[in-house]
Amino acid sequence: MAEIGIGILGGGYMGKAHAVAMSAVGAVFNTKLRPRLEMICASTPQNAERYRAAFGFARATDDWRILVDDPAVEAIVIATPQNMHRDIAEAAFARGKAVFCEKPLGASLADSRAMVAAAEQSKQPNMVGFNYIRTPASQYARQLIADGEIGDVTWFRGEHTEDFYADPKTPASWRTAGEANGTMGDLAPHMINGAMALLGPIDRLIAEVETVHDARPGGAVTNDDHGQMMCRFAGGAMGQMYFSRIATGRKMGYAYEISGTRGSIRFDQEDQNALWLYRMDGPEASRGFTKILTGPSHPDYEPFCQGPGHGTGYQDQIIIEARDFLRAIETGQDVWPTFHDGMEVNRVIAAAMASSRDKSWKHVSEF
Amino acid sequence: MAEIGIGILGGGYMGKAHAVAMSAVGAVFNTKLRPRLEMICASTPQNAERYRAAFGFARATDDWRILVDDPAVEAIVIATPQNMHRDIAEAAFARGKAVFCEKPLGASLADSRAMVAAAEQSKQPNMVGFNYIRTPASQYARQLIADGEIGDVTWFRGEHTEDFYADPKTPASWRTAGEANGTMGDLAPHMINGAMALLGPIDRLIAEVETVHDARPGGAVTNDDHGQMMCRFAGGAMGQMYFSRIATGRKMGYAYEISGTRGSIRFDQEDQNALWLYRMDGPEASRGFTKILTGPSHPDYEPFCQGPGHGTGYQDQIIIEARDFLRAIETGQDVWPTFHDGMEVNRVIAAAMASSRDKSWKHVSEF
Amino acid sequence: MAEIGIGILGGGYMGKAHAVAMSAVGAVFNTKLRPRLEMICASTPQNAERYRAAFGFARATDDWRILVDDPAVEAIVIATPQNMHRDIAEAAFARGKAVFCEKPLGASLADSRAMVAAAEQSKQPNMVGFNYIRTPASQYARQLIADGEIGDVTWFRGEHTEDFYADPKTPASWRTAGEANGTMGDLAPHMINGAMALLGPIDRLIAEVETVHDARPGGAVTNDDHGQMMCRFAGGAMGQMYFSRIATGRKMGYAYEISGTRGSIRFDQEDQNALWLYRMDGPEASRGFTKILTGPSHPDYEPFCQGPGHGTGYQDQIIIEARDFLRAIETGQDVWPTFHDGMEVNRVIAAAMASSRDKSWKHVSEF
Amino acid sequence: MAEIGIGILGGGYMGKAHAVAMSAVGAVFNTKLRPRLEMICASTPQNAERYRAAFGFARATDDWRILVDDPAVEAIVIATPQNMHRDIAEAAFARGKAVFCEKPLGASLADSRAMVAAAEQSKQPNMVGFNYIRTPASQYARQLIADGEIGDVTWFRGEHTEDFYADPKTPASWRTAGEANGTMGDLAPHMINGAMALLGPIDRLIAEVETVHDARPGGAVTNDDHGQMMCRFAGGAMGQMYFSRIATGRKMGYAYEISGTRGSIRFDQEDQNALWLYRMDGPEASRGFTKILTGPSHPDYEPFCQGPGHGTGYQDQIIIEARDFLRAIETGQDVWPTFHDGMEVNRVIAAAMASSRDKSWKHVSEF
Ligand SMILES: NC(=O)C1=CN([C@@H]2O[C@H](COP(=O)(O)OP(=O)(O)OC[C@H]3O[C@@H](n4cnc5c(N)ncnc54)[C@H](O)[C@@H]3O)[C@@H](O)[C@H]2O)C=CC1
Ligand SMILES: NC(=O)C1=CN([C@@H]2O[C@H](COP(=O)(O)OP(=O)(O)OC[C@H]3O[C@@H](n4cnc5c(N)ncnc54)[C@H](O)[C@@H]3O)[C@@H](O)[C@H]2O)C=CC1
Ligand SMILES: NC(=O)C1=CN([C@@H]2O[C@H](COP(=O)(O)OP(=O)(O)OC[C@H]3O[C@@H](n4cnc5c(N)ncnc54)[C@H](O)[C@@H]3O)[C@@H](O)[C@H]2O)C=CC1
Ligand SMILES: NC(=O)C1=CN([C@@H]2O[C@H](COP(=O)(O)OP(=O)(O)OC[C@H]3O[C@@H](n4cnc5c(N)ncnc54)[C@H](O)[C@@H]3O)[C@@H](O)[C@H]2O)C=CC1
Repeated sequence: MAEIGIGILGGGYMGKAHAVAMSAVGAVFNTKLRPRLEMICASTPQNAERYRAAFGFARATDDWRILVDDPAVEAIVIATPQNMHRDIAEAAFARGKAVFCEKPLGASLADSRAMVAAAEQSKQPNMVGFNYIRTPASQYARQLIADGEIGDVTWFRGEHTEDFYADPKTPASWRTAGEANGTMGDLAPHMINGAMALLGPIDRLIAEVETVHDARPGGAVTNDDHGQMMCRFAGGAMGQMYFSRIATGRKMGYAYEISGTRGSIRFDQEDQNALWLYRMDGPEASRGFTKILTGPSHPDYEPFCQGPGHGTGYQDQIIIEARDFLRAIETGQDVWPTFHDGMEVNRVIAAAMASSRDKSWKHVSEF
Repeated sequence: MAEIGIGILGGGYMGKAHAVAMSAVGAVFNTKLRPRLEMICASTPQNAERYRAAFGFARATDDWRILVDDPAVEAIVIATPQNMHRDIAEAAFARGKAVFCEKPLGASLADSRAMVAAAEQSKQPNMVGFNYIRTPASQYARQLIADGEIGDVTWFRGEHTEDFYADPKTPASWRTAGEANGTMGDLAPHMINGAMALLGPIDRLIAEVETVHDARPGGAVTNDDHGQMMCRFAGGAMGQMYFSRIATGRKMGYAYEISGTRGSIRFDQEDQNALWLYRMDGPEASRGFTKILTGPSHPDYEPFCQGPGHGTGYQDQIIIEARDFLRAIETGQDVWPTFHDGMEVNRVIAAAMASSRDKSWKHVSEF
Repeated sequence: MAEIGIGILGGGYMGKAHAVAMSAVGAVFNTKLRPRLEMICASTPQNAERYRAAFGFARATDDWRILVDDPAVEAIVIATPQNMHRDIAEAAFARGKAVFCEKPLGASLADSRAMVAAAEQSKQPNMVGFNYIRTPASQYARQLIADGEIGDVTWFRGEHTEDFYADPKTPASWRTAGEANGTMGDLAPHMINGAMALLGPIDRLIAEVETVHDARPGGAVTNDDHGQMMCRFAGGAMGQMYFSRIATGRKMGYAYEISGTRGSIRFDQEDQNALWLYRMDGPEASRGFTKILTGPSHPDYEPFCQGPGHGTGYQDQIIIEARDFLRAIETGQDVWPTFHDGMEVNRVIAAAMASSRDKSWKHVSEF
Repeated sequence: MAEIGIGILGGGYMGKAHAVAMSAVGAVFNTKLRPRLEMICASTPQNAERYRAAFGFARATDDWRILVDDPAVEAIVIATPQNMHRDIAEAAFARGKAVFCEKPLGASLADSRAMVAAAEQSKQPNMVGFNYIRTPASQYARQLIADGEIGDVTWFRGEHTEDFYADPKTPASWRTAGEANGTMGDLAPHMINGAMALLGPIDRLIAEVETVHDARPGGAVTNDDHGQMMCRFAGGAMGQMYFSRIATGRKMGYAYEISGTRGSIRFDQEDQNALWLYRMDGPEASRGFTKILTGPSHPDYEPFCQGPGHGTGYQDQIIIEARDFLRAIETGQDVWPTFHDGMEVNRVIAAAMASSRDKSWKHVSEF
């Protein structure tokens, strides 16, 4: 068993989640590589020190370059806002370090392309933080489709809906300015990535985005509150997606429905331990959607619990990501989703934003 | 209490439903006008006689003109395939009779326009059979929105999905040929009408329709299996709709989700006695979607049962329609939805078909 | 096709439901015998006349003996409070008339025994109004168990819970006095009958009943608000039941769960068109409870609607009962559940009340 | 921040869960005391070494006395089968060490009593592993009841049902022999503890236990497969419970329903992030059960995720237990549930087993 020095950039929502994941992943997955929490970086020395102490890192800094440069830091996790992703990643690759970057990959398609180039040039392990598709249920959904269990897919509906900005009195923040931080930049990537993981590439689309509440305490809102999209997958299926941070009542509405010629699948992250599967077989009278509770017979469940139906949660998704990142480092093999996969998501979003501007269908290949 | 002579055209799926409804409506709603089952018409004398005996009509015919001409028939219900709706309705109005017509109103927008003109000229009661929006739950949803209980609506998602043609081995029938009989002609009208009942008119849309299984035992399929649509309501909300007869696993997927600035509503006809309501009030910790079971405190429930949660079913919707039709006749006042409302649905569908053809946004006002 | 003259006693909650059912049953089920609404009886001449006009009866009376004696009344439906069931039934049988009696059969076990004796002596058709077990879903559940689809049943849990007396400010009525009108007398019969229909006879039990709110506006409450029971079926399964009229939030909580050695079934009347079935077969990863929506492939569904998932409701159960009653009259064959079945339910309740009094297990055979 | 040396006994299902929890708890909850994984014990040297390496302990042993005696081990977690709990706990208390013991506390009531005595004499922190009641949802349920939000509780129904022994071909193991390892010994403690946490002490009960499959590959089954219970709480509520390891289809059926005079609560661990709450207030038309998704406004949720509805899982419950255990050590204050609480559960089970034997009601106070 070998150790690897980890540096995390950001100690907020996701920085903490990754710190916990790095603490737990070894015991959960019996990984060959074991993380050593080397350094954490935040925007002020005080915050950095607070996070260090809380999460159990050896050292802290408020300068991301110090972290990236530190020789004891062998692999980094980027959990700062999107506009910093590119610079950090490029610097880390330049120093030959493995990089795990939170979604969205770059703050723009151009940033993402540059990041992919940097990753490829460095030949270092690189991954993007699409955690929702890592649940045992969604991994199982991918398997079912890949195995042809629902036949040819004819229809897809996906959404990523939350309501943290539903109330117009919720103050402005970094999330309410900058295209990369709006709903299309911040939430849509999860479901677009999920859609492509489940069905394959998107060929063309038409989209519409909108800012519903354009002023909030603390400032104007300059990015989108919600966006809708209609698309055609390269594999032939039609589909619709919806993304919103103002979907009143929805807390974790990462949800999809997939119809195929021989079956269908339904999933809602708000009940993340259940996958609904319909098969067009057996006597008509006993057909229906089966509510499958995840358990040891599903991907990446057993390490968390030997009992089926006992359930995994949000934090466990991040632990699964950590296992994948360590595996990529250990084996030197790419583990999905790489920066390239993250960039493909940005292409779809770029196409959607262009479509919303000029109100016409767009081929993703043009972006 | 007065009687009124009823003639029904068609004795199939819907002909029977209306015959039962006319038998039961008086006792259920204590209507002033009481239906007398005067004559039924089907495509052959044998079928017509069989339906007569089964449903309890006085007389039968295989010639719709005989029924329409008969002086004892004072009001008619059209439950024949869509391509016959116009001729029958025009003849009936010309004879000064009240007409209830199954959805879709006409087989085309032109037919529907002609039917509205005939209805207006005759000044006779006229209604269209959009039954799903008549459930106590959906009527209550309309009330909630109209009363501002969920604030300004920002988003609508609707679907009408079934799977009776999901299996490519299901034979061709009158439903698999003719634009009016495809999914857009046959199923979409219910949800488009529902969407407009809940949110008001649709301003513009973009749509895409498709035939997935183009050959079936018994013939080629010449109309659409499913269709998707993205739209903007005149009131400002964005929305998406989906219509399918090949939605594997969906049996009665008339379903909608509506987000507003102060609350949200969710409904699925497969559990037609429940409406889900979220309100952005009270302490955060106790917020969530409330599953409201319909009961005597909701519209048109109590006549069916004094106990809440005891539930109404499909046939009860048709009884509610019958009550409305009798009321329109008795009072001489229009009862929603009239032929005009049915025609408005056809306009939206015409816009959608045009949009699908030339792949661009369409304003409904242009149709 | 022949007619039969129907007399209904009571025009309240259930009197109306039966009147509507008798109006609709012919058209729904294409019955050979067709009901003619001959006479209705209520407690005052005014009410009787009001019901007559509303429901479409030929004549009205406030004296049940007049109805029972009337030669044009060939079959009667008893929908008056329980304490009148016995006298009316005995008089009707004495005059050679078929009798459908609302649940519970008699106001006491002694009454029920006398009613069974009268029925047998008269050789007239006799049925009891256990409507909930008539839904397509519960009929299908019975089939599944009878066919061994879930193996040997090891466990049963049933409840009949409502909350119409949950609020202590709800006034007293005929339901709050008299043992036959309490929860054990009024609600428990439905589920006890259901349990026996699904699993067979109950061998022994222990029960406890209680009055929670002993005073209400308008009077003291002298019967039970809720009751719980633990039992052993003759077939070997263990089980628990619960009955309540104060189960806050429950509107139509006729619900059961049945575990067998090869599968399980779950049902809740609040979603009466769904039956949940688990089978211990196929790969572990795809097992789960299947939510089966009722449709034409299930018992007694198709006459109400050709489309699966479109749903039946409370009133439809009463129409199914009417069909059964007409069939019993027409064929001269007993149709389940007869008075004898109703009496068996009263035996279980008598055992439960005795058990509650002396706090010990009781064999039903002793009652 | 101080460290504390942890020793875990057992490296199976629960041993691993506690090892992971001890790795993660510091970062999740920012605890003052930080666990140092000092030693792990299993039944063979090979297993012990395997667990050591996998979970990241410093040392391993196959002799629990070595672990308990080790001076660097300051607090221990007992995750071995029930029959070892007492000896280990007594030895640890004798050496002045804090003890966390998996449920059930002792293998018998006598064992549990001895363990409580040892704990009290030692004045060391002592806790029992009732993890299910630690979910944010169930903690919130406890708060709601304690705050009177559902009024006076009138009725409780609880179950702990799984199906890991539903198939008679599943081989015998340590769980199929010995009263402490049957369903009443192994599963019932969770729900009995939960019931008492939610409603307070149980006054009297009547129960029945049964072995359904008395032979399995590998040996006879000498303990119970399922058990049912009817009870009365000291606070006045009636209730029923059911426990089963053969409840076909149930994977994690820790579920309860609680009716009160002003509201009701429903919960099912298979959807552990949702609590259903009904309140008897507001207009009748908008009442219903609200599905509350847990989030930062509920107990012990936010440390796992800032987003509501994102969900916690099984492993997170064990992390919450670890936090509580560390807090008890750090503060020297008892944290619920202590050994005394665990012993109270054993009393109820002892009463239930006695009741099953002589088939009569038992007062828990007699045990
Ligand atoms: N996968 C998922 O489920 C989620 C992903 N994210 C992504 O994670 C990233 C971080 O988002 P959150 O954790 O929500 O943000 P946050 O606002 O909670 O935390 C941001 C962190 O970045 C640090 N930071 C900001 N500027 C810095 C600078 N110049 N130098 C050093 N540190 C700096 C802050 O100190 C803070 O610790 C974003 O890219 C976001 O899109 C966010 C939430 C959920
Ligand atoms: N509101 C709803 O839920 C539904 C509405 N519909 C609508 O109801 C109408 C009828 O559809 P279904 O009942 O499903 O069709 P169906 O095929 O079951 O019955 C059609 C009936 O029309 C009669 N008919 C056909 N050609 C005729 C002719 N030339 N002369 C006299 N009678 C003729 C047939 O004998 C048959 O009785 C359609 O407009 C359809 O769109 C259909 C199903 C559900
Ligand atoms: N199967 C089911 O789902 C239900 C069955 N029931 C049963 O139906 C029966 C009637 O109950 P509800 O309809 O709820 O009662 P209700 O109070 O609504 O109606 C009772 C009817 O009996 C009539 N009546 C009372 N005393 C009379 C007398 N001396 N002479 C003539 N008529 C008299 C009243 O005028 C009234 O029309 C009861 O046995 C009850 O247990 C009641 C509700 C539901
Ligand atoms: N709270 C919960 O959700 C659960 C609690 N439990 C409880 O946890 C305890 C352990 O159960 P599991 O982990 O399921 O058992 P297991 O069979 O998976 O593991 C038992 C462990 O004890 C060790 N062991 C057995 N005999 C030993 C000996 N003489 N000396 C040293 N080590 C020995 C074994 O090596 C093994 O590592 C039991 O008390 C059980 O009731 C079990 C499962 C779930």
